[in-house]
Amino acid sequence: MTPNQARELLEAVRAGTAPVAEAFKAFAAAPVEHLPFATIDTHRTLRKGFPEVIFGAGKTPEQTVAIAKRILARDGQLLVTRVTPAHAARLKRSFRKAVHHEDARCVTVEQPPLPKRPGIIAVLAAGTSDLPVAEEAAVTAEVMGNHVLRIHDVGVSGIHRLFARLPEIQAANVLIVVAGMEGALPSVVGGLVRRPLIAVPTSVGYGANFGGLAALLTSLNSCASGLTVVNIDNGFGAAYAASQINALAAGE
Amino acid sequence: MTPNQARELLEAVRAGTAPVAEAFKAFAAAPVEHLPFATIDTHRTLRKGFPEVIFGAGKTPEQTVAIAKRILARDGQLLVTRVTPAHAARLKRSFRKAVHHEDARCVTVEQPPLPKRPGIIAVLAAGTSDLPVAEEAAVTAEVMGNHVLRIHDVGVSGIHRLFARLPEIQAANVLIVVAGMEGALPSVVGGLVRRPLIAVPTSVGYGANFGGLAALLTSLNSCASGLTVVNIDNGFGAAYAASQINALAAGE
Amino acid sequence: MTPNQARELLEAVRAGTAPVAEAFKAFAAAPVEHLPFATIDTHRTLRKGFPEVIFGAGKTPEQTVAIAKRILARDGQLLVTRVTPAHAARLKRSFRKAVHHEDARCVTVEQPPLPKRPGIIAVLAAGTSDLPVAEEAAVTAEVMGNHVLRIHDVGVSGIHRLFARLPEIQAANVLIVVAGMEGALPSVVGGLVRRPLIAVPTSVGYGANFGGLAALLTSLNSCASGLTVVNIDNGFGAAYAASQINALAAGE
Amino acid sequence: MTPNQARELLEAVRAGTAPVAEAFKAFAAAPVEHLPFATIDTHRTLRKGFPEVIFGAGKTPEQTVAIAKRILARDGQLLVTRVTPAHAARLKRSFRKAVHHEDARCVTVEQPPLPKRPGIIAVLAAGTSDLPVAEEAAVTAEVMGNHVLRIHDVGVSGIHRLFARLPEIQAANVLIVVAGMEGALPSVVGGLVRRPLIAVPTSVGYGANFGGLAALLTSLNSCASGLTVVNIDNGFGAAYAASQINALAAGE
Amino acid sequence: MTPNQARELLEAVRAGTAPVAEAFKAFAAAPVEHLPFATIDTHRTLRKGFPEVIFGAGKTPEQTVAIAKRILARDGQLLVTRVTPAHAARLKRSFRKAVHHEDARCVTVEQPPLPKRPGIIAVLAAGTSDLPVAEEAAVTAEVMGNHVLRIHDVGVSGIHRLFARLPEIQAANVLIVVAGMEGALPSVVGGLVRRPLIAVPTSVGYGANFGGLAALLTSLNSCASGLTVVNIDNGFGAAYAASQINALAAGE
Amino acid sequence: MTPNQARELLEAVRAGTAPVAEAFKAFAAAPVEHLPFATIDTHRTLRKGFPEVIFGAGKTPEQTVAIAKRILARDGQLLVTRVTPAHAARLKRSFRKAVHHEDARCVTVEQPPLPKRPGIIAVLAAGTSDLPVAEEAAVTAEVMGNHVLRIHDVGVSGIHRLFARLPEIQAANVLIVVAGMEGALPSVVGGLVRRPLIAVPTSVGYGANFGGLAALLTSLNSCASGLTVVNIDNGFGAAYAASQINALAAGE
Amino acid sequence: MTPNQARELLEAVRAGTAPVAEAFKAFAAAPVEHLPFATIDTHRTLRKGFPEVIFGAGKTPEQTVAIAKRILARDGQLLVTRVTPAHAARLKRSFRKAVHHEDARCVTVEQPPLPKRPGIIAVLAAGTSDLPVAEEAAVTAEVMGNHVLRIHDVGVSGIHRLFARLPEIQAANVLIVVAGMEGALPSVVGGLVRRPLIAVPTSVGYGANFGGLAALLTSLNSCASGLTVVNIDNGFGAAYAASQINALAAGE
Amino acid sequence: MTPNQARELLEAVRAGTAPVAEAFKAFAAAPVEHLPFATIDTHRTLRKGFPEVIFGAGKTPEQTVAIAKRILARDGQLLVTRVTPAHAARLKRSFRKAVHHEDARCVTVEQPPLPKRPGIIAVLAAGTSDLPVAEEAAVTAEVMGNHVLRIHDVGVSGIHRLFARLPEIQAANVLIVVAGMEGALPSVVGGLVRRPLIAVPTSVGYGANFGGLAALLTSLNSCASGLTVVNIDNGFGAAYAASQINALAAGE
Repeated sequence: MTPNQARELLEAVRAGTAPVAEAFKAFAAAPVEHLPFATIDTHRTLRKGFPEVIFGAGKTPEQTVAIAKRILARDGQLLVTRVTPAHAARLKRSFRKAVHHEDARCVTVEQPPLPKRPGIIAVLAAGTSDLPVAEEAAVTAEVMGNHVLRIHDVGVSGIHRLFARLPEIQAANVLIVVAGMEGALPSVVGGLVRRPLIAVPTSVGYGANFGGLAALLTSLNSCASGLTVVNIDNGFGAAYAASQINALAAGE
Repeated sequence: MTPNQARELLEAVRAGTAPVAEAFKAFAAAPVEHLPFATIDTHRTLRKGFPEVIFGAGKTPEQTVAIAKRILARDGQLLVTRVTPAHAARLKRSFRKAVHHEDARCVTVEQPPLPKRPGIIAVLAAGTSDLPVAEEAAVTAEVMGNHVLRIHDVGVSGIHRLFARLPEIQAANVLIVVAGMEGALPSVVGGLVRRPLIAVPTSVGYGANFGGLAALLTSLNSCASGLTVVNIDNGFGAAYAASQINALAAGE
Repeated sequence: MTPNQARELLEAVRAGTAPVAEAFKAFAAAPVEHLPFATIDTHRTLRKGFPEVIFGAGKTPEQTVAIAKRILARDGQLLVTRVTPAHAARLKRSFRKAVHHEDARCVTVEQPPLPKRPGIIAVLAAGTSDLPVAEEAAVTAEVMGNHVLRIHDVGVSGIHRLFARLPEIQAANVLIVVAGMEGALPSVVGGLVRRPLIAVPTSVGYGANFGGLAALLTSLNSCASGLTVVNIDNGFGAAYAASQINALAAGE
Repeated sequence: MTPNQARELLEAVRAGTAPVAEAFKAFAAAPVEHLPFATIDTHRTLRKGFPEVIFGAGKTPEQTVAIAKRILARDGQLLVTRVTPAHAARLKRSFRKAVHHEDARCVTVEQPPLPKRPGIIAVLAAGTSDLPVAEEAAVTAEVMGNHVLRIHDVGVSGIHRLFARLPEIQAANVLIVVAGMEGALPSVVGGLVRRPLIAVPTSVGYGANFGGLAALLTSLNSCASGLTVVNIDNGFGAAYAASQINALAAGE
Repeated sequence: MTPNQARELLEAVRAGTAPVAEAFKAFAAAPVEHLPFATIDTHRTLRKGFPEVIFGAGKTPEQTVAIAKRILARDGQLLVTRVTPAHAARLKRSFRKAVHHEDARCVTVEQPPLPKRPGIIAVLAAGTSDLPVAEEAAVTAEVMGNHVLRIHDVGVSGIHRLFARLPEIQAANVLIVVAGMEGALPSVVGGLVRRPLIAVPTSVGYGANFGGLAALLTSLNSCASGLTVVNIDNGFGAAYAASQINALAAGE
Repeated sequence: MTPNQARELLEAVRAGTAPVAEAFKAFAAAPVEHLPFATIDTHRTLRKGFPEVIFGAGKTPEQTVAIAKRILARDGQLLVTRVTPAHAARLKRSFRKAVHHEDARCVTVEQPPLPKRPGIIAVLAAGTSDLPVAEEAAVTAEVMGNHVLRIHDVGVSGIHRLFARLPEIQAANVLIVVAGMEGALPSVVGGLVRRPLIAVPTSVGYGANFGGLAALLTSLNSCASGLTVVNIDNGFGAAYAASQINALAAGE
Repeated sequence: MTPNQARELLEAVRAGTAPVAEAFKAFAAAPVEHLPFATIDTHRTLRKGFPEVIFGAGKTPEQTVAIAKRILARDGQLLVTRVTPAHAARLKRSFRKAVHHEDARCVTVEQPPLPKRPGIIAVLAAGTSDLPVAEEAAVTAEVMGNHVLRIHDVGVSGIHRLFARLPEIQAANVLIVVAGMEGALPSVVGGLVRRPLIAVPTSVGYGANFGGLAALLTSLNSCASGLTVVNIDNGFGAAYAASQINALAAGE
Repeated sequence: MTPNQARELLEAVRAGTAPVAEAFKAFAAAPVEHLPFATIDTHRTLRKGFPEVIFGAGKTPEQTVAIAKRILARDGQLLVTRVTPAHAARLKRSFRKAVHHEDARCVTVEQPPLPKRPGIIAVLAAGTSDLPVAEEAAVTAEVMGNHVLRIHDVGVSGIHRLFARLPEIQAANVLIVVAGMEGALPSVVGGLVRRPLIAVPTSVGYGANFGGLAALLTSLNSCASGLTVVNIDNGFGAAYAASQINALAAGE
């Protein structure tokens, strides 16, 4: 219930055109209706700027399709992350416009795609093994209405590769820097840019990597100011935050 | 050296007005000078948008003053974080305009203060013990040219306190949410806003808190999309990132 | 042996009606018989209020059936947790009344079901992936003689869903709150109710979730008073404790 | 706003005795007022059954007194935990009825004490070094209106000491079992009682104790059904939960 | 070379019956020969009291047989631990007297068995799932020449089962106590016996068990004096130590 | 109550020489009296072979003296570990025969000393910083009636120092090997002896030593068969176990 | 671009033989070209002394072959580590000279092999299960142009085996010591040699080994001076460092 | 005993000029004398190339002086690390030539200094707070006979500072790279040099730094080939290894 709706209802009560019992019922639902969101179905887009995203891992293809249908009934965009080939096949059977982004382990439906806002989100990946996470970030950012610049294989062990791309990197509005192993890339990039940078540690590595803990700690302890961090392998979350920032920059 | 400067120098060489030796020296300095930054003194502001910040912990008051002098010789703003009373006293003796923010454990010198850009950075703190970290964030954001809204003591154990402030919270451009103990506040706020949210776990707690690890893991695993995280107790870092975002929103 | 039995036996010895050797044997068994329980077969129900529960994981279907038979020979209720489909099939072959609760990964036999005591145990689950653990809790609480209210998908990232169910939640005698990822739900609910709340962290998540450690630490450090915690994924244990509490409330 | 208040207000609008603008304002405040609690001052007791408790650690004596005054202005009971002698002295200066429980590191003010409800909360401590935590639990339970039975020094290395007290232990409504070192006592007691048992691991120990982690893991992994756990050294939290359970048992 | 052998050789040199070159060669080998062991083949039994034991995990059946042959060429006893069915089948094909202890995941060859020394090693297991580790201990102790008493399923959640066996337990020379989950059994038994007790934590459990870490920490922090600990699941190591102790007790 | 005492009492009841009431009282005490120990005061020596030992850390000097008096009222031996100089001074004031072992941080009273049993317990220390723990072990072993051989500063970084003492080491009945830093000494010694070896990791070290965790893991994972481990810095526990073993070897 | 090239280019500009536009382009590339390396293809060998090495894990056989082709187009040596049999088969199909080192899980192509520099790299392995890591080190060192001495199965539990090889060990220029379980071997060897020693902890072990953490901490805390460490199972990295040292020793 | 000495002794036995008893005694001492080291006093320099170094932490000034005297009685060099001002004052009182390196927390005595070998050891420090560890490394390397190049404050957050020093860095024989916080510097430098690089993580940082664990994991997981690592804050160990490498390069 918006403020205007509330005011109109009260006027109707006074005018006698709305019975007290009915008005009471509307207000009694208040704890939810008075908040700026109401139910998952109708309000997620209003509240967060994008419909609910389906995390595919741990859901059956059927469950995924069922939820997807409810989302697409109201919204033009769908993003399903962490899909298996089985998820993808099942989704493509149900939705003609479904696209399977294999590297990113994502499926998207865009009917139509959101218009792209100005400003670029750059997605940097330190090594080839970090690509699935980087692609999850890139696909997420794109489906949410952003231009994405992909810069791959610029790890610090051959730092000149990074410098060769510096002008493009410095021109982006937001940076997502994906790195496994020791995860030093976000710190190095963070010292070279003035724009918000989101580090995504990955679980790429072995031994004392401890499933991405090494790269996570590296980012959290970075001496580069302005760097923020998301969970290990969470390309989606980084892109979501980057898109929020880019939307703000676009004056939305 | 900018592209234009390089081109002009080469023309001058060809015209004979610039000696080869001098041109050679200019280009020989290239590995550093060709990058968009040159030395710490003259270029940090250009590169990152704010002069170097002094981390007071582990430095003597004298060292702190010495570095501060070099920074203030070129820039109008100074921020020293994690100061003891001894640092503060020593800095106030040297700099007439130095202000000691006791709760924030910071000293600032602003001659003059940066003009404030539009857009608000909201700093939320879950409990009273989280205030030093929240204040470090607030003071940092202010000295970097932002309007700050402080919202304290809105932890999830009495969640109505949070809802009472919801319209203000939703109106901010960026949110910094500071929480120790179990650190649940960022997740709850993250579900209610569409703007970028930076979580700052604090070391407030005991027992299985493990010095802030509990709150850190809570934020990293948040199911609220778009949330990013900084190191435990790192109010400064969160504000630095928030200011970068707010500057972007202001079209800087 | 009760005090009265002991006194009577001694009188019988004195009267000569009970031979010394027999009395000696009765007292020699004392270390066990003098405690208020004697052997696993006959006394678990007396001591704990419910027969032994079989933890299926790591047992073969045959072992499970063998133990189940011994339990059902004396008690009307059987609960087997963490069963595979193979366990379930095997148990259903042996026990006509066996019911396989697939979501809960449990098999129950109730001949007849325990009468339900007054008072409701509410089982809340933060996300869809937490359902198996929540169902293990719900099925356990039911077979132990409790009314159960299931409230699913009320995670904090869309907190209005929780508020919509608040009156029901506040009416329950005991609350079991199941949450993976960052596990913030128990803290939020704990701030809203005056009844005992048992948090069940789950292993749902990835990366810095560390197999449920994140949610576990969140609950242990909760700033909501009165919250207690069980092991990661231990829906059974939470329901067992909740049933003990509800039985106490029912004056049993 | 209660349902009745809402209905009356709507009737007044219809009757024209309440202006629309005023009614609108009342409903607009709804997100907070419609919830069953309103502000920290007036509603905590209603919502949770006991006024706010002050966690002394990290607060100055003056801050503690200031908060205490606000609580005692409305409520007859005050509990301050984790106090230093300085806190205690300061509180006794301000509140004539303040009592300093030195072992428990608590200060209480009871004007008058709450009437004691029937049913006993037993507080068991494994070793002498666990006493401060056990006393924090005992004092908390008493000030919240419960009879407390203290059973000290019944660690498992001399298990006959425990058995000597078994009848008393089995007669309690709720058990709080406090243990550091390896923390085995809760598991042993948990196998002997049918009532809810709350384990409190303590940080007593050295070496591979890791500040109480050993005892915490012991309790979380207990094979005794029905055992729940609170944070390391959290005697207060255990007693709070125990009091909630005992209140439920008393039909409150 | 024993002292006597050395002395005789020197006498022979002096007598001229042993050439200097040959004596030189014998002493040149000294760094190894002068130690009370010489090569792995001939001296392990002398040095440690039992031939080398083969850890099957990570070795192919063929490698295992090859090593086994070299050991059996010199010694009458063979113990292979952590075998798969494939190892067992292969070993039985090569060694007619090979026995596969399935529960213990061991293969033994005894030609002939060592005579049993007096004194009993008691092997206690807390739960059914701890049996493989307990059996590894029992089989190891037996093949090394000890009488073994197996006492199973005496976990602390039903502590009367333990007391029923107390006289036997107290009569043993050495105790091996195997326990997973919270691992409380060694502490309880350790308070009841005066003989050496070796705790074997197992990886049985889930969630915050962390692969046996919980039970390991429990044993290391035990308040029962005289308890020592081996690695998680290391039934073999516990039995080896127990056998060394029992041999000492037998005056070997 | 021994079996014989029980039988005699029953005969006396039958003969009428013992009244039923008195016999009933004796048996009613059964849960404790029927076990082979009765109260902490009179039975600890019988059950474990040595009176209770006082852990000084966390106790005031006065508490320590009070407990010590109760122990010495019944037993001739007293051991207090982890004492500060204040504890020692206070104990020496109360007990004329108290000896303060400064290196070992122990106080002993022996009136008279226990006779020394045959067989030697060797205590090896890897480095000078490990001496306090080694001395705690040595003093404990001595007061419990054992001959002790101290071998210091034989760490593996100069392994010839160890070999120079090998004959003495191999002649001992039990070995206690104390080592901090990387804790490799127990593994090396364990490969050279056939007698039981107890490893004591110490907290000596820095950085990735993590308070003794490094040395602890080294010992737990040792490839030397027969090695058992106690808690970090637990010299007392190692000596207690060693004394139990040596007593067994002496036929006690 | 070398200094000489730069100077010549400027002279050519002045002489009019080089157009400004072309010179501008050359200098504009400066951020990369002015560094002593240019692109991954042409400069890795110059910068690090060996072409890029392919880490096979996580790459498909096809990706591996594609990268290998680009490397072999310019360099005579190829090293692919962590290969599966599928990688090896695919590489052998493409490169006639490919050799599959099965134990080492490596494929090499040497056309022709590098000449071997003087000085020996000794690779010691503590146990048989450590061989794959040791062989990875040995093969890496060989393909990089070093003589390698393999010394296997010299773990500290039978330390005489180590001493038998001491003269060879002490004659090596660099030592790589590979050890899992408790990882004590590097410390022992480190005390016996004056040459650089690189410890390689392996993940061989179980229980409290925690995937190699135990051996890693052992090496990091070694009391043997001069020992450095690489990641768990990182035989390649150790050999790479050893080869750099050996090349330095050879005056390269 | 050298081979020649052994042969001569045997000849003397045969000739009758050496009695058998005496020869026996000489050979019986063999296990130690046959190794290339004999006692700590006379042989450490021979075996490791530098006399024993005193780790000051945990030793009293008096103990330190006592050990120092024994070392200086035989060797010209003394190094004491981790000294307090009290250690330094005491050492300067005893040794006229003692120098206190305050930043490095070291005392050295050089009478005379070792001649410096060719080849430079470069010591890089990422930040000002890392200086004590870097200086410990520098002083250690110097006293062991090396030229040292100190390069401070070249952390990755302003990477141009590093590039400005690149030629010097690439000219060094060995690199010691000291870095706390996220510890990314060793990885970046490791990609730019072909010489051996030893990373020294420091404990500088806070929060999720966990006492240096973050920087340690960063180095261990570095994607830069050839990097080896020492313990957190272990500047001494890094310099010791670097000096061994540099000595090898100098043909010693």
